[in-house]
Amino acid sequence: MTAEEKTTGEENTIFVGNKAPMSYVLAVVTQFNSGSKEVNIKARGRAISRAVDTAEIVRNRFVSNAKVKDIKIGTESITNEEGRTSNVSSIEITLSTA
Amino acid sequence: MTAEEKTTGEENTIFVGNKAPMSYVLAVVTQFNSGSKEVNIKARGRAISRAVDTAEIVRNRFVSNAKVKDIKIGTESITNEEGRTSNVSSIEITLSTA
Repeated sequence: MTAEEKTTGEENTIFVGNKAPMSYVLAVVTQFNSGSKEVNIKARGRAISRAVDTAEIVRNRFVSNAKVKDIKIGTESITNEEGRTSNVSSIEITLSTA
Repeated sequence: MTAEEKTTGEENTIFVGNKAPMSYVLAVVTQFNSGSKEVNIKARGRAISRAVDTAEIVRNRFVSNAKVKDIKIGTESITNEEGRTSNVSSIEITLSTA
């Protein structure tokens, strides 16, 4: 990661997918330990519940001074391989130690 | 529902489980149409993503003046039939037309 990337904000974002929650917990904890005051946890579709798990495990077990600063939900359009468009829900949870 | 129950707030809460999202969308829309200014959508565990779907479908397709007023996440302890305790994440989404 370059110093320039540090300014964009995206480097503080963890995208939660289909791996075990602990993978994402580790990624979030690592972000905080490397000096970040805020980490965004993003997910879409069925991974949304895993994003909430990730945030809760980080708060309750690893970074006890982390607070839920903001939670946003939304809808994204995705196009599958056959060209069909469907809507999928998304979530963005911002944890902050500031 | 009695007038007394009306004052508690729980009657404005829709619990999202494992049914199709449209069941819960209908329940939320019905609450708004019966005069409620606020509806809480609650879910635990894997139903959390369905709760987000429910809120998004209500906002985007049925009650366009409904706003996401608040989103809370938390952790609940549940005890299974064998007496073992495990933690499960929860979400509460408050939609408001006020």
